Amino acid sequence: MSYNELQNHMQRIADVNYAAATLGWDQETYMPQGAAGFKASQLSTLSGISHQLFTSDNTAHLLKGAKNGTLNDIEKKNVVQIEEDFERQKKYSTEFVENMSKAVSAAFNAWQQARKENNFKIFAPYLEKLIAIKKQECDLLGYQAHPYNALLNLHEKNATVADLDVLFTDVRKELVPFVKQVQQAKQVDNKFFFQPFDRDAQWHFGIELLQQMGFDFNRGRQDISSHPFTTSFSQNDVRVTTRINENDFAEMIWSCIHESGHALYEQGLPAEQYGMPLGEAISLGIHESQSRMWENNVGRSLAYWKHNFNEAKKYFPKQLQNVSAEDFYKGTNRVEASLIRTNADELTYHFHVMIRYEIEKQIFEDKLKVSDLSDYWNAKYKEYLGIDVPSDAQGVLQDVHWSHGSFGYFPTYSLGSFYAAQFFNQAQKEIPNLINEIESGKTANLLNWLREKIHVHGKYYTAQELCVKITGEKLNFAYFMNYAKNKFGTIYDLK
Amino acid sequence: MSYNELQNHMQRIADVNYAAATLGWDQETYMPQGAAGFKASQLSTLSGISHQLFTSDNTAHLLKGAKNGTLNDIEKKNVVQIEEDFERQKKYSTEFVENMSKAVSAAFNAWQQARKENNFKIFAPYLEKLIAIKKQECDLLGYQAHPYNALLNLHEKNATVADLDVLFTDVRKELVPFVKQVQQAKQVDNKFFFQPFDRDAQWHFGIELLQQMGFDFNRGRQDISSHPFTTSFSQNDVRVTTRINENDFAEMIWSCIHESGHALYEQGLPAEQYGMPLGEAISLGIHESQSRMWENNVGRSLAYWKHNFNEAKKYFPKQLQNVSAEDFYKGTNRVEASLIRTNADELTYHFHVMIRYEIEKQIFEDKLKVSDLSDYWNAKYKEYLGIDVPSDAQGVLQDVHWSHGSFGYFPTYSLGSFYAAQFFNQAQKEIPNLINEIESGKTANLLNWLREKIHVHGKYYTAQELCVKITGEKLNFAYFMNYAKNKFGTIYDLK
Repeated sequence: MSYNELQNHMQRIADVNYAAATLGWDQETYMPQGAAGFKASQLSTLSGISHQLFTSDNTAHLLKGAKNGTLNDIEKKNVVQIEEDFERQKKYSTEFVENMSKAVSAAFNAWQQARKENNFKIFAPYLEKLIAIKKQECDLLGYQAHPYNALLNLHEKNATVADLDVLFTDVRKELVPFVKQVQQAKQVDNKFFFQPFDRDAQWHFGIELLQQMGFDFNRGRQDISSHPFTTSFSQNDVRVTTRINENDFAEMIWSCIHESGHALYEQGLPAEQYGMPLGEAISLGIHESQSRMWENNVGRSLAYWKHNFNEAKKYFPKQLQNVSAEDFYKGTNRVEASLIRTNADELTYHFHVMIRYEIEKQIFEDKLKVSDLSDYWNAKYKEYLGIDVPSDAQGVLQDVHWSHGSFGYFPTYSLGSFYAAQFFNQAQKEIPNLINEIESGKTANLLNWLREKIHVHGKYYTAQELCVKITGEKLNFAYFMNYAKNKFGTIYDLK
Repeated sequence: MSYNELQNHMQRIADVNYAAATLGWDQETYMPQGAAGFKASQLSTLSGISHQLFTSDNTAHLLKGAKNGTLNDIEKKNVVQIEEDFERQKKYSTEFVENMSKAVSAAFNAWQQARKENNFKIFAPYLEKLIAIKKQECDLLGYQAHPYNALLNLHEKNATVADLDVLFTDVRKELVPFVKQVQQAKQVDNKFFFQPFDRDAQWHFGIELLQQMGFDFNRGRQDISSHPFTTSFSQNDVRVTTRINENDFAEMIWSCIHESGHALYEQGLPAEQYGMPLGEAISLGIHESQSRMWENNVGRSLAYWKHNFNEAKKYFPKQLQNVSAEDFYKGTNRVEASLIRTNADELTYHFHVMIRYEIEKQIFEDKLKVSDLSDYWNAKYKEYLGIDVPSDAQGVLQDVHWSHGSFGYFPTYSLGSFYAAQFFNQAQKEIPNLINEIESGKTANLLNWLREKIHVHGKYYTAQELCVKITGEKLNFAYFMNYAKNKFGTIYDLK
């Protein structure tokens, strides 16, 4: 019975967290502007209640009770992970949480102002203060080897500077020269994306893509927001959003596919583990592996567009009349150094992440000062991407993450792509006709494979364990590099 | 400072309640079907947390502190009402609440089944059990004169059987014979409502009506649901819903106007009183007075359609080509005895309420048994409406209220209409050009009057006090009867 009591307690906390997620979703989708103030206070109250419930003595008591009972393997995993999380959350004093929350609010406002006025100096003092608090956080959480590891672990359990250094050394050694090679080849055309594409027709095409991927509309829905995102109110209620640019067909397509990739993971988590770690996603990196595999390995493949280009043409016969499936495929894979991370292609994207990783690491090594950040940023963009940054607004101020106090988050984007390549390589081995299936618009076997290999396990395995279990080896950058060389070597006709 | 602490505490509880309202809204508007189970558990957790927070010793402690401080008039009113509510909520033991909640769930399921199978016997034993619990509730809440008063007071503070008996005696004495007179006159035509009316065009016309009424879309929005309702997530976020029947133009129009009437009240409550009684509506009766005044006194008046019929014609020139503003006005005021309360006209509606009131009162007097309910219902429909009830599904099983344990709720519908007539009569006196203004589509002065007289006060006055303050006398059925005689006497050309 004790385990059940712990489970009831955790489900109650989940109820509060999912309620907060519902309010967050409403905030981004349907909320009228004037409602912002009270909505923020409601969200803050819910997260306070959730934190209070979880860090209460009751949790300690229920954990103890559960551990005294007889537990099966799954129950054991849940109890261990709840305890880990409990011990971590207990480290945060109310005073610290309130300080952090105030510093984040102030930094976020300053960042918005700074970005608008294109003036990093407005943001700098707030960022400094936030970094000081994050350094305190490293200390109170504790770490081995490197303070930044403490922050990495908040997003990606067991991730270390040591491992990421190896990974990004590979990126520098292999991806940087390969991209240089691509850039010297004849550029592919993508201008057909930038025509007027009717909003409603785009919406319906997006829904068709989601249906084809296996998104379960009985347990989820899609709405519109200014920044696409995925959120869950339970395993049976997964919401994605997209945005539609009437002059850029690409934006809606790959945001739909990307978010739906996240959503398929959430819909595949076991509902009977509602509120428990085994009902949750492993890590940001593994979550991103799901969205990026669908977005890039599937959704930017020739096979995928052999089928879906004809579908797209049904909606937009005029706009696509002089375009072939292959043109479409090539256009969406155009590689081009650019200023803004979120607009980057599949390859140069990782240079954006690498720059942020290097900066964050050095900040927490006390080697880089906030006052030098803008110059450092610009120098790195010149070095890795070969471009001049014309303004801080398009440079060091472009991402919201730091103003939220999210350090150690960016690397999970690259980890996601690299895991995706390795998983997709394995899927191709285990589903021999996979590419043919994709060519005829069928991805059910791929989804089943992901369900069985990844989704149903929740947090049973760590990211590292899962990778070995599925592919027989640790995360290996070679899979991404091979994928990149094959795909872009062909597209750009490289030797 | 102590009053502020109480206020912070109450605002925190409001945050939880409004979060629950958000989930409730999502449930009725956008939630995918498969999400129902977890959503219900989230709603139940939130209401449990809210109840726990409010009935905690902390509330008692903060109330005491506030009362020891120096309070202005407004603060005093808040403290008194919080304390009243606290004392009432404290009377409910956890055991009682759980028992009630289980009985309601069981009764609701049985009612759905019974209605589907048109078999009252399926519902009867569950209703009996629920009534037994509601009788316990009367005892634990305490009452004077009549146990049913305890239940009435949950929805309408200070309402009594004694007052309602007087009111419904008037209804029986005056409205029943008047309706008989109307029924002997030549019937008016309303068949033009029942043509195909395009969904999108109806939606846009509905939005136009809301805008014209002064619904603030910066602090609210309209969506679609299967049963129209109004809910608030704060005074700055008021949501209405409507439904659109493509073969009945009337349904959307008057549901929009009715719900927007509720919403204007909610949007007019003072936001600085967020979480406090003075930021809340007085009672269900006064809430309903707002929706019904807009729906009937304004929205079913000739003046209103002199302006808006032309607007309607812009959307539906073909459907309305052979209809005049006056035909339209008469059609929407067609009086006709009918089986279903929610479809009833403005006059016979009150017979439906009266029957339910008589039944509820006798149940709590132990004079009417559940086993006799169906026969009693049918006899009363014959007596007051002159119609035979062909089945329980269209009779005693038609409303959801009893299955929810909502006894003492129905009378507030009639109170709303009667207050509306009395208030509107006063508004006409104080805004001399009101009817002319409505004729030219201008209702801003009426809204300002309602704001000033009713909305801004929140719960400062009781319904009874407010009525005297605004109109100089207690609720007086004569205002409704005069309104009815004037309006329907003219429409039906009575002497």
